[in-house]
Amino acid sequence: MTDTLIKVDLSQPATENEQIHNRWHPDIPMACWVSPGDDFILETYDWTGGAIKNDDDASDVRDVDLSTVHYLSGPVGVKGAEPGDLLVVELLDIGAKQESMWGFNGFFSQTNGGGFLTDYFPSAQKSIWDFEGMFTKSRHIPGVRFAGLIHPGLIGCLPDPKMLADWNSREQALIDTNPTRVPPLANPPMARTAHAGKASGELRDKIAAEGARTVPPREHGGNCDIKDLSRGSKIFFPVYVDGAGLSVGDLHFSQGDGEITFCGAIEMAGWVHMKVEVIKGGMAKYGIKNPIFKPSPIVPTYNNFLIFEGISVDDNGKQHYLDVNLAYKQACMNAINYLTKFGYSPAQGYSLLGSAPVQGHISGVVDIPNACATLWLPTDIFEFDINPSASGPIKHLDGSIDLPLAPDK
Amino acid sequence: MTDTLIKVDLSQPATENEQIHNRWHPDIPMACWVSPGDDFILETYDWTGGAIKNDDDASDVRDVDLSTVHYLSGPVGVKGAEPGDLLVVELLDIGAKQESMWGFNGFFSQTNGGGFLTDYFPSAQKSIWDFEGMFTKSRHIPGVRFAGLIHPGLIGCLPDPKMLADWNSREQALIDTNPTRVPPLANPPMARTAHAGKASGELRDKIAAEGARTVPPREHGGNCDIKDLSRGSKIFFPVYVDGAGLSVGDLHFSQGDGEITFCGAIEMAGWVHMKVEVIKGGMAKYGIKNPIFKPSPIVPTYNNFLIFEGISVDDNGKQHYLDVNLAYKQACMNAINYLTKFGYSPAQGYSLLGSAPVQGHISGVVDIPNACATLWLPTDIFEFDINPSASGPIKHLDGSIDLPLAPDK
Amino acid sequence: MTDTLIKVDLSQPATENEQIHNRWHPDIPMACWVSPGDDFILETYDWTGGAIKNDDDASDVRDVDLSTVHYLSGPVGVKGAEPGDLLVVELLDIGAKQESMWGFNGFFSQTNGGGFLTDYFPSAQKSIWDFEGMFTKSRHIPGVRFAGLIHPGLIGCLPDPKMLADWNSREQALIDTNPTRVPPLANPPMARTAHAGKASGELRDKIAAEGARTVPPREHGGNCDIKDLSRGSKIFFPVYVDGAGLSVGDLHFSQGDGEITFCGAIEMAGWVHMKVEVIKGGMAKYGIKNPIFKPSPIVPTYNNFLIFEGISVDDNGKQHYLDVNLAYKQACMNAINYLTKFGYSPAQGYSLLGSAPVQGHISGVVDIPNACATLWLPTDIFEFDINPSASGPIKHLDGSIDLPLAPDK
Amino acid sequence: MTDTLIKVDLSQPATENEQIHNRWHPDIPMACWVSPGDDFILETYDWTGGAIKNDDDASDVRDVDLSTVHYLSGPVGVKGAEPGDLLVVELLDIGAKQESMWGFNGFFSQTNGGGFLTDYFPSAQKSIWDFEGMFTKSRHIPGVRFAGLIHPGLIGCLPDPKMLADWNSREQALIDTNPTRVPPLANPPMARTAHAGKASGELRDKIAAEGARTVPPREHGGNCDIKDLSRGSKIFFPVYVDGAGLSVGDLHFSQGDGEITFCGAIEMAGWVHMKVEVIKGGMAKYGIKNPIFKPSPIVPTYNNFLIFEGISVDDNGKQHYLDVNLAYKQACMNAINYLTKFGYSPAQGYSLLGSAPVQGHISGVVDIPNACATLWLPTDIFEFDINPSASGPIKHLDGSIDLPLAPDK
Repeated sequence: MTDTLIKVDLSQPATENEQIHNRWHPDIPMACWVSPGDDFILETYDWTGGAIKNDDDASDVRDVDLSTVHYLSGPVGVKGAEPGDLLVVELLDIGAKQESMWGFNGFFSQTNGGGFLTDYFPSAQKSIWDFEGMFTKSRHIPGVRFAGLIHPGLIGCLPDPKMLADWNSREQALIDTNPTRVPPLANPPMARTAHAGKASGELRDKIAAEGARTVPPREHGGNCDIKDLSRGSKIFFPVYVDGAGLSVGDLHFSQGDGEITFCGAIEMAGWVHMKVEVIKGGMAKYGIKNPIFKPSPIVPTYNNFLIFEGISVDDNGKQHYLDVNLAYKQACMNAINYLTKFGYSPAQGYSLLGSAPVQGHISGVVDIPNACATLWLPTDIFEFDINPSASGPIKHLDGSIDLPLAPDK
Repeated sequence: MTDTLIKVDLSQPATENEQIHNRWHPDIPMACWVSPGDDFILETYDWTGGAIKNDDDASDVRDVDLSTVHYLSGPVGVKGAEPGDLLVVELLDIGAKQESMWGFNGFFSQTNGGGFLTDYFPSAQKSIWDFEGMFTKSRHIPGVRFAGLIHPGLIGCLPDPKMLADWNSREQALIDTNPTRVPPLANPPMARTAHAGKASGELRDKIAAEGARTVPPREHGGNCDIKDLSRGSKIFFPVYVDGAGLSVGDLHFSQGDGEITFCGAIEMAGWVHMKVEVIKGGMAKYGIKNPIFKPSPIVPTYNNFLIFEGISVDDNGKQHYLDVNLAYKQACMNAINYLTKFGYSPAQGYSLLGSAPVQGHISGVVDIPNACATLWLPTDIFEFDINPSASGPIKHLDGSIDLPLAPDK
Repeated sequence: MTDTLIKVDLSQPATENEQIHNRWHPDIPMACWVSPGDDFILETYDWTGGAIKNDDDASDVRDVDLSTVHYLSGPVGVKGAEPGDLLVVELLDIGAKQESMWGFNGFFSQTNGGGFLTDYFPSAQKSIWDFEGMFTKSRHIPGVRFAGLIHPGLIGCLPDPKMLADWNSREQALIDTNPTRVPPLANPPMARTAHAGKASGELRDKIAAEGARTVPPREHGGNCDIKDLSRGSKIFFPVYVDGAGLSVGDLHFSQGDGEITFCGAIEMAGWVHMKVEVIKGGMAKYGIKNPIFKPSPIVPTYNNFLIFEGISVDDNGKQHYLDVNLAYKQACMNAINYLTKFGYSPAQGYSLLGSAPVQGHISGVVDIPNACATLWLPTDIFEFDINPSASGPIKHLDGSIDLPLAPDK
Repeated sequence: MTDTLIKVDLSQPATENEQIHNRWHPDIPMACWVSPGDDFILETYDWTGGAIKNDDDASDVRDVDLSTVHYLSGPVGVKGAEPGDLLVVELLDIGAKQESMWGFNGFFSQTNGGGFLTDYFPSAQKSIWDFEGMFTKSRHIPGVRFAGLIHPGLIGCLPDPKMLADWNSREQALIDTNPTRVPPLANPPMARTAHAGKASGELRDKIAAEGARTVPPREHGGNCDIKDLSRGSKIFFPVYVDGAGLSVGDLHFSQGDGEITFCGAIEMAGWVHMKVEVIKGGMAKYGIKNPIFKPSPIVPTYNNFLIFEGISVDDNGKQHYLDVNLAYKQACMNAINYLTKFGYSPAQGYSLLGSAPVQGHISGVVDIPNACATLWLPTDIFEFDINPSASGPIKHLDGSIDLPLAPDK
């Protein structure tokens, strides 16, 4: 039986678990050690450490303290791994915790986090998803059910001091361009809510003061929120410190490309069964700066899509230059509007795009001045036909069910 | 036998063919008429109308007059189609012209067109691709061969006068923010090289003066360069003028997401066999602003990928805010650098990413401040193994072959 | 432009074309020669040489002279190929003849050919399929349309004299066990209708007297009717004579596993674009007795199936021992019965199973005494939903359309 | 948390567990009851109830008492289900038992069970497979590793008395044609080793005397050994008795089409998470005789195949009439011989074909006198390249490792 090296008790605050941390820093003590070739299991909290509940009230989403995230399991030290190596991590399997077979998706309030479409959806809302084995469905979004493409939203190795300093300085420089923006451009270190695993005393204080926040993806991987880093995939991570220091968390039962709802995918507590190997000197051998990976041989085969296009012109008719971000926003809004014709509320549509295995493709980035992005909506996840036809759409939902909403106080 | 409604003689200048046009304008006369339910064939020039030759000299790419593109076949009038309808276009089949079984991919000079990675590849270069039935390979990029995902880069219906005016004004407003930029932010109408099909005299002059350029994708579709609009797909286009006015051109034998090389995919002359239907009032029924489509049931099954991540930090270490465009650039450069370890030149790698069926996914757009994009490189298109291993990469190419390059004069 | 080495004029009798033959014999003169590395095109008749017409009368199917089939294009000599080599044939592309964009599927009369389910369908019937680019549909079977998985039903190299003698003797031994059976157990050489290509005089007479009939698949491949030998696939054929002598014919626009209707798939005249290479001594190197092949990277992605089971118990309740043939018959009849609930006639169902890309799997062959076979019916080829539901099936067809039937005279 | 309705203690003999049975009979008492819409978990023994050990000695395979199999979990009564209904069973998830992360594959001795290729492999042998999350590999077959397509080999509902009588009589009639055959043609009821769940006394004796053996697949499904009945699939079972009486067992981590090794797939103990619904009167509504099913949306995407053909001519050159069974044998032997060129022993090849997700297709069943079957071997499961090439095969294994063999005593 495979060893579970990090255990998580969902009834215990994440901050009390010494094998959990919520900042990136080279000095975070290793939570445990393994050898190349080992396979082992790490349990994880959901990214908020349990702040969001399985109920019909979105005030927990509205009031969440985002300085506390993400609660990560690790770091795992790998014997013999040195800076310049590649750490090969195979995700042998991933699952939800038996006592917690559900997940949540939400939109943050624009005043506390925001999200990709926060201008359209400024209030906190959430949907709860129940897991039925490999499948999930939500009481807040009827008519849809799909298999999970389970993956960690966040996984990566500890940075070295130079890299950490670079992260903090470049992000602070960005913040300085508009320091009072809501939501902020980026998040600087924040000592108050830092959790540094086993570290205590001065070491803990140093980590808390300097530790990079976990929200952005960075050179080491980190919070990439790539839905295809799913169970069965194999990832090659750059190593920056002795022992590598691999941490993982923010498990998602499913997510659409972009994790557009920010809070986020279908978020869950769970466990990761993984195996590690080391390629000595692999960073230079392969010219690796960011992680690379091979996707899983087992993924949902939802191959019938309805594809929505978006271009980089905003709702006011203003032209933006090759802005893929805006083009994808437009593609998402086009899809959401389309879904309303079948009876979904816009919020249900938005939540669905953040939760289901939709694809977001960078379709054109050279045809000045318009970028073109496409949103691929798998049609087989719906219990009814959503394809266009000469007879027009049928409203399958009567509007009696919608996502809970918590207005700003 | 299906009727070929528009014929193209590659030895004749595109400007002399009255069923070809290179601007968007509601007054371009219909080249021919069909009825809903009809299927028919349209032949097309390559997008440049034959400016690029099957040789080993990139000066044609360097010197191309971009004000002449794209040469489109159409507009095809569809009887009974009215503004507000959806025109359903099924791409029954697409192929190269029998007398022209090859295509080209190139990078424009930074001073004449540029491209996605023009800062890294500022000079004109090109690669030639030979077609072997369903497959293609290039004498300029050894070791790779793949099946085509054949599609039109450009397809759409004529705009109405109001839409045309909006296009021109919003793009001019963007140009006005930096009118001397090289390459330009956008391209305004240009009468000199306009080709208005059958129009002549004052009508021709009006179209030439007002006609929108064909480069950007817009609300009607147009130059979307979506690789998945491939043969077998079914597209739902908004109709803005009586008869719809469907035009098509810019055929690609294959392309990667983003068409990053701009010049462009594997560009070819060919033919499109299509069928049209009309959904009356479909725009309002389905809330359609931009085209939507269903992809083909027949696509290449290259399912083994190596996936490269990129984040929105530039080469100088500067942090950009949720910039997917930059993140995708970084993912592309990561892939190109990786390929050099196996013996490819950077230019070969760049051309490959523009030509092969690589995917570009918008992986994360909410994890402030970094966007995350992924570049999916199908590994089965290579004749050797490009996966990472403990033993390190093998150089399969000796550098003796590279893409022709034409320095700026 | 690729050379067409064998041309076919559909208005000319196949027997008058010297590059066509309808028997297997080592002495059939090569129709043309190519070199390893060459690619070339061969045109082909449909397998009957034009005996079946695009009309609504099945008497042509009833009256066909089966001793005349199959009309094959070839043999193509490959320079340097010797016995013991492997001939590598890549099917670069396959298509229908432009002047003949249709195909037929039929059931032979039980007294003239029969078929897999001839006990249930004893009379001659046929359906006609029109091609729309990559797609096909039939006026005789409404409500279904699908993309072609185009392939040659018959392809292989000439046998050597020893192999030919073995074929004829083992098949005659089988015939001798029940020489008056209708339909026969096998077909011996028949000189009257033999066509030996360029051979004339005594040589022609020798070939006619000894030449093996083309119906069965044999060690050289031949009439394997494997739907997955489709365009884009690569086949490794044993070579038995100098020059290999590759012949091809019996093109199918589409077929289900088993080609259960015998007459046959969606049969068509067309062309094959192919490329040949030689692996010297490959038969011994790889221990090859029968051909092996790699399927195409481009195949229809109809991944939603309804799967029917069958076991080796016959309709009289009699138990047969691990009889996969019977189990597959039962699975087919189960599918046909199921389709009648949606309004299809049994004949329409039978024809569909022979024509559409259904899969037939050998699911269990060890669980004595019952074999288990499964019939995989792709549900996306139907224009309506054929999945089971609590509300029961809907009859989408009113029975007004059925397959033409020609009773025995 | 989902209820586990049947628990299995692997250290307890299966015959002592009252929720386990090893015969089919309408009077076996329900082990538990559920309602339509319920989801629940059933644990299962491996099919032999623990007779085969995780060691390197095949004597357990040689000596197994086949009259004891299969140990099934159930029957589960479904409230309201009546004869004529369809029981819809969704396999929400399937896994191995945490304390038993391994499986076995073996060949029976020809004198005790035999198997598909028993004439070639007459002695008992076995291979042990370790599970690494979603993946498996064997210490007895180096160089291969793949993801599991996990499924129950055996699942179905209780027969009614009439059906049971038919089974027993038709199988006895077959046995009577050659009652001393080794291995036997079929297996009649055998009271000695019958386990009738909760039944005791006279009821137990009746069931033991009459209960049908579990080896063959029959009208109710049963031991179909269909690899595609995998987790995520949805099956529609005929109901014959009040409450349906659903039983399941014989879990396979992976299997090739045909389960050719008989002992069997990669056999394991585990659990099934399932959900049931009822379609009232569904058998008549849909004309269902045997179960039908929809495959899972999540299956391994091993899409690169090497395909081997086989025809119905035996090793002595004797011609058999349209014998798919023999054709598949020949295809299997062709694949096994091919694998020996890369260093595998024939036994390793045979075991691999029984264990890996190979496909067996009924390719041609009408081209008299030869049936054609194809064996699809996925090439991505190998750690080295097994495709043919001009340079010939490389022996990757040195023969030092082989399957344990236990000669007949």
